Amino acid sequence: MAGATSIGSVRGDIRTVWIAGVWPELAAGRFPVKRVVGDTFEVSADILREGHEALAAVLKYRTVKDTTWREVPMHHVDNDRWVGRFLLEENTRYLYTLEAYPDAYRSWAVDLEKRLAAGMEVASELLEGAALLRPALARAVGADKKRIEERLAELERATTPLQQARILLADDTAELVENYPDRSAATTYDRELEVVVDRPLAQCAAWYEMFPRSQGTVAGRHATFQDCIARLPDIAAMGFDVIYLPPIHPVGRSFRKGRNNSLVAGPDDPGSPWAIGNERGGHKAVEPALGTLHDFRELVGAARAAGLEIALDYALQCSPDHPYVHEHPEWFHHRPDGTIKYAENPPKKYQDIYPLNFYCRDREALWEELRSIVLFWIEQGVRIFRVDNPHTKPMPFWAWLIREVQTLYPDVIFLSEAFTRPKLMQALAKVGFTQSYTYFTWRNFKGELTAYLTELTGTEMAEYFRGNLFTNTPDILPPILQDGGRPAFKLRLALAATLSSLYGIYSGYELCEGAAVPGTEEYLDSEKYEIRVRDWDAPGHIKAYIARINRIRRENPALQEYRNLEFYECDDDNILFYGKRSADGQNTVWVAVNLDPFQAREARLDLPMRELGVTSEDRLQVHELITDQRQLWRGPAHTIRLDPEEPAAILRVAPFARKPFADPCY
Amino acid sequence: MAGATSIGSVRGDIRTVWIAGVWPELAAGRFPVKRVVGDTFEVSADILREGHEALAAVLKYRTVKDTTWREVPMHHVDNDRWVGRFLLEENTRYLYTLEAYPDAYRSWAVDLEKRLAAGMEVASELLEGAALLRPALARAVGADKKRIEERLAELERATTPLQQARILLADDTAELVENYPDRSAATTYDRELEVVVDRPLAQCAAWYEMFPRSQGTVAGRHATFQDCIARLPDIAAMGFDVIYLPPIHPVGRSFRKGRNNSLVAGPDDPGSPWAIGNERGGHKAVEPALGTLHDFRELVGAARAAGLEIALDYALQCSPDHPYVHEHPEWFHHRPDGTIKYAENPPKKYQDIYPLNFYCRDREALWEELRSIVLFWIEQGVRIFRVDNPHTKPMPFWAWLIREVQTLYPDVIFLSEAFTRPKLMQALAKVGFTQSYTYFTWRNFKGELTAYLTELTGTEMAEYFRGNLFTNTPDILPPILQDGGRPAFKLRLALAATLSSLYGIYSGYELCEGAAVPGTEEYLDSEKYEIRVRDWDAPGHIKAYIARINRIRRENPALQEYRNLEFYECDDDNILFYGKRSADGQNTVWVAVNLDPFQAREARLDLPMRELGVTSEDRLQVHELITDQRQLWRGPAHTIRLDPEEPAAILRVAPFARKPFADPCY
Repeated sequence: MAGATSIGSVRGDIRTVWIAGVWPELAAGRFPVKRVVGDTFEVSADILREGHEALAAVLKYRTVKDTTWREVPMHHVDNDRWVGRFLLEENTRYLYTLEAYPDAYRSWAVDLEKRLAAGMEVASELLEGAALLRPALARAVGADKKRIEERLAELERATTPLQQARILLADDTAELVENYPDRSAATTYDRELEVVVDRPLAQCAAWYEMFPRSQGTVAGRHATFQDCIARLPDIAAMGFDVIYLPPIHPVGRSFRKGRNNSLVAGPDDPGSPWAIGNERGGHKAVEPALGTLHDFRELVGAARAAGLEIALDYALQCSPDHPYVHEHPEWFHHRPDGTIKYAENPPKKYQDIYPLNFYCRDREALWEELRSIVLFWIEQGVRIFRVDNPHTKPMPFWAWLIREVQTLYPDVIFLSEAFTRPKLMQALAKVGFTQSYTYFTWRNFKGELTAYLTELTGTEMAEYFRGNLFTNTPDILPPILQDGGRPAFKLRLALAATLSSLYGIYSGYELCEGAAVPGTEEYLDSEKYEIRVRDWDAPGHIKAYIARINRIRRENPALQEYRNLEFYECDDDNILFYGKRSADGQNTVWVAVNLDPFQAREARLDLPMRELGVTSEDRLQVHELITDQRQLWRGPAHTIRLDPEEPAAILRVAPFARKPFADPCY
Repeated sequence: MAGATSIGSVRGDIRTVWIAGVWPELAAGRFPVKRVVGDTFEVSADILREGHEALAAVLKYRTVKDTTWREVPMHHVDNDRWVGRFLLEENTRYLYTLEAYPDAYRSWAVDLEKRLAAGMEVASELLEGAALLRPALARAVGADKKRIEERLAELERATTPLQQARILLADDTAELVENYPDRSAATTYDRELEVVVDRPLAQCAAWYEMFPRSQGTVAGRHATFQDCIARLPDIAAMGFDVIYLPPIHPVGRSFRKGRNNSLVAGPDDPGSPWAIGNERGGHKAVEPALGTLHDFRELVGAARAAGLEIALDYALQCSPDHPYVHEHPEWFHHRPDGTIKYAENPPKKYQDIYPLNFYCRDREALWEELRSIVLFWIEQGVRIFRVDNPHTKPMPFWAWLIREVQTLYPDVIFLSEAFTRPKLMQALAKVGFTQSYTYFTWRNFKGELTAYLTELTGTEMAEYFRGNLFTNTPDILPPILQDGGRPAFKLRLALAATLSSLYGIYSGYELCEGAAVPGTEEYLDSEKYEIRVRDWDAPGHIKAYIARINRIRRENPALQEYRNLEFYECDDDNILFYGKRSADGQNTVWVAVNLDPFQAREARLDLPMRELGVTSEDRLQVHELITDQRQLWRGPAHTIRLDPEEPAAILRVAPFARKPFADPCY
C-alpha cells in the first residue's frame, strides 16, 4: 500500500489535486493503448480538490524519443471531468500524463466579482490581487514581461478601488497571469501512460491470403514468385491492401503430410508449408521451388508498385529436418530418453512438427535468434507479419519481441492468429499485437454479431485489440459458407468489410469455394497439403462485388475507422442494421445486411436521425453505394427488402439540405 | 512504462502466469476496500497462461500485524476466472495478494489419461510421472513424506505400465503431489491489496442525532448531560444504536448568531455549537452549561449500558474566541493587513467562524494537534466521530488522520458529513471514511431512488463507500417532510431503514416536525441557534412505528447487509418494490413503499420467484412485519395497496414448504 501512504502524510504535502479515473488507461498503465498517425488523441480525467478553489490542468505528452514534455491545456467538461486533446503526428510510441494545480488568480477573481456585485469593501482583496500579479512578472518572458509591468504601473496610478479592480480583472490581465501560473502546488499524475501510434494501415486494410505455390496456371506444377507477380493485377483490381503468404520456407520431409492431411505423403506431395525447414534451410530461407530470395524481393517490390503490401507468416515451429534441430537440439522439448518431442494432442500426433521450448536453459540465444528472423525479413522489405498460434508461446516473449522490433521499425505490424479463449486473445493484444483474428468467422446471427462487435469496437477492448475480421482461412470454412452458396459469400464479405475497418479473405473466396471435408470445417483438397490451380475467372465469381465493396471502403472515411460502429434497431431478426460516422462528422454510412442466405427478408429500419443532427421527421438523401441508386427518405423509419442475390445495402446518408425558413427563396 | 518492460525481457522470465482483473481492487490497489468482521472475503481474478497447461492458484492474506502470509486455494470458475475466499476474523486491516503456478502433475495426468484411453504407448510418460513425484518427496513433511516414499516403492515393484499408471494417477498420489507443488515458476501478483475490516456497527446501525442542550424539560433552560442520560430509555426503546451529538464544546461569543440565524444574538442566546471555543477552552473542553468531562463520561457509560453508543462531532473550525486563535495565529488564514480571515461565501459572512489553514507553514504541528483531539475523546470512551464538512479540508489530511487513529484504535468509525459534488464525496470515502452521508435526503421518486441506491450499493462504490441514509439533519428539512405530513415521515423512515443497513434521523423527526423557514430547507426556530424543549410524547408521534422498524432490522439479517439490495418491477411508479437476501440465504425480505404521501396507491408486484429457488407458479409464505399479518401468496405476481397511513409493507418471504411428491403423506 505504498500508494495509500503517499496519499496522506503528516508533512502535509501541498500537492493535493486529486487526479483519478484517467482515460484511456489500461490496467493502471501497464499496457499501452493503440492509435494511428493522424488521430486526435483525447485524454480525460477526474480532477478535483477540497473546497471550491478554481483549478487548472494540462495534458503533457512526448514521443519516446523526446526528452522534454509538450503541453496542451485541459478543460472542465462537467462533474469534475476534464478533457484535453493532441494530434498524434508520428509513427512511434508516445507517453502522456497530466498535471493540475490550484488557479489562485481565477479563485480570487470569482470572489472579487461577487464582492463587487454585493457592494462590499474590497481594499484587502485588491492587495491580494496585486500580490498575485507581481510573481507572474518573475515567471513571464519577452513581451509579456513588459505587459505585466505596464499593468502594475497602471495599478499604481489607479486612484479608486473600482479602477484597480478593473485593471486586475481585465481579460488580458487574466490571460497574462494564467499564462505564467504558479505551479508550486501542482500535482503530477503518478503514472506515465503510453499510446502506440501505428501507421494507418494498422487500423484499416483489406487482406488477401494466398498460397504462392498455388498461383500457377499449369495443373500440378509448383508455382513461383513470378507466378505471384502475374497475379498482382487481379488482386489489386479487387481493391485489397495486403497479400498475406503462408510460410515460404523450405518444407520439411520427415513425416510429411499428404493430400487431405493423410499420414503418408506421395512422392510429389509438397507438404504443409507450416512444417518449416529442411536441408535447404529454415526460417530465413526460401523454398527453392518458389524461386530465390531475389525473386521474393521482386515480388515485394512489384506488390508495392501495385499498391499492395506483402505480409509473411511467422510460425515458430520446426520440421524435424530444420537446421535448428541439429544445430540447437537444446531449444526443443525432450523425452526422458533424450529424443526430441514432436507436437501432440493425444491421440493426435503431429510428427512433422517440433515445438520450440521457450523456457529452455539457453532461452536467451533462442529468443535472440527468433528476433533475428523478423529482422531478416524486414531487410527484405516486409513490414507485416501474421503470427501463427501465438497463444502457445509465452506472453513475455511477444511483449519483448514486438517492442524490440517496433523500437527499430515502428511501421511493423503484427497480426495475432490466435483462435483461443477470449482472455488469452485479449492478453496477446495487450502485450503488443497490432491486430488480432476474431470469432467473427463463426458469428452469423443478429444477437451474437451485435454483442460481439460491440465488445470488440465499443468497450475497453477497442483501446488495445483491433479485430481483423476474416471470412475464412485455410483452416476454417465455416458452415454458412458450406451451405449458403453465393449469397452467403456476398453477405459475409459485406459484413466483414463494413463492421470493421480491418478484414480479410482467404483466396478461393472470390470463387465461392465451399466444399468441405464432410462434418468438418476443413476445406476438401486443402491447399495446405497440395498444389491447386484455379481459373480465377470461373463462372459465378464475385470479384466485381468485392472490388465494389473495397472501393466503397476507400471512398468513405467512416468505414476506415475502427471504434465508430453503432448498431440500430430494426424489426426483423434476419436483418442487421448498423452504421459508422467519420470523426469529422462529414461522412455517414448506414448498412443493412440480410443474414439469411436463403430468402429475401424485409425490415422496418429505425433511422438514427438524431446522429445526423436532424429531427425525426426530416428528409434524408440516401445513396446506396453497391447498386449506385439514390433515394429520398423521410424519417424516422424506412422499410427495406434485401434479396439473397443483393444481400447488403451500404447507404451513404446526409440530411437533405433545407433553406433556412427566414432566407428569401425567390 | 516500468510495468510494460517487466512483462517481456530477453532473459525469458519463467514466471509467466498472467494474473489480471483482480476483484476487488480499487484504482490499482491505491485504496482499500471495506468489509466487517465476520464477512467471508471473496477475491477473483483472471489467471491464465499460454497453451493448455493446467494451473493452480492460491489467495494469500495476512493482517497488517502478521509477518507471514496465510493461504487458501483458488478454484477455476469459468472463462479463466478463478475465485478464493477467506474469513475476516479480526477488526484490523488485512493485506491480500495472489500466487499462481503451472500444475505440471495435473497437466501430465490429463495427458496420460488421454493416451491410455487411446491405447497409446506410455513408457516415456510414466518415467516423466515418476520424475514429478520424486521432487515432491523433498518438499513433503511428516507422514506425507513417508506416504510418498511408499508410492515410489510401489512404483518400483509394479511390473506393468498399467500398474504404474494406476499408482501415479491414484487420487491420493495426486493429493500428495499437489500438496507439495513445485512453485519455482510461480507468479506472484505484483500488488498487495488492502481490505479494512471494521466492526459490524460500521456497516449496520440506526443513528439518532440530538442537541444535548435541548434534552431538558424546562423551557429556556440549557439542558445538561444528566438530562441526556434521562432521555436514554426513550431512545433505546425506539431501537437506535448510535446517538450523535453536535459539538459539546464551549461556544464562541464573538459575532455569536441569534435565533433563526440572526446576526445579533440576545443575551441568553446559546449560539451555534459549531462556533467552537471560548475562554473556557476549545475542542478538548466541554461547554460548562452541559456539565463536566466527568458528566460526559457518565453519559457515555450510561448509553453503553442501554445498548447505545455516543458519536461526537469533529468540526475543524474555531470561533474567534478559541484558544488556538491567540496561541497559534499561524494556523489560520490572514489578510494582507495581518488580521485573521473569517469564513465567507460572498456576500455571506460567517464572522463567528475562523477556518484553519491546513497548508500553513506550521502544518505539522497543526495536524498533530488535530489528531490529538480525536485521541482525547477516544480516551473518554468515544469510538464514533461524525466529521463536519470534510470536503473543505485536504484529502491527504484525512488519509493520514484516519490511518493514524485506526492503527491504534481499529474500532473507531468516521462518518463523512459531505454534501458536495459526487466525486469529492467518493474521494473522501476512498481515503478512509468509514461511512458517508448521501443524497438520499433529496431523492423521492422511483427512478431517482432506484438509480442512486443501485449506484451506492451495487457498483464499485459499494466496495468503499457506505451510505448512511439520513432522513433529515439540522441543516436539511427536505420538501417532502415539509409538505407530506405524518405519512411522509413514515415512508421516508421505512425507505431509509430498509434501503441501507445504515440510516439516521435527527431528533424531532419522531414528532413529525416539519415547519421550515419559508422557501428554504432550514428548520424554523432551529436548534442550531436556540434551546428547544419538546414533549417527546406529543400527539401524532411515530415512536412506535420507528421502534417497530428498528426491531424488524434487528430480527432480519438481510436488512443488516449493505450490498445486497435488489430492485424489482411493479406497475405503478408511485410504489417502490425492492428486496434483500442474507448472505446465508436464510432470510429474505421484500419491501414495497408508497412514495406518494397524499393518497393510496396500488401496484402489481412482479415477484422475483427465482431468487427464492422456486418456480414462478409456487406458493409463498408472506409475513408482513409492520402489521404482523401473514398471508399465502401464489406467484408470479401480487397486487398490493398501500395507504398513506401505512405506506410501507416489509415482507419476510419464504417458499411454502411442500412435501416431496414421492414421500408418503399419510
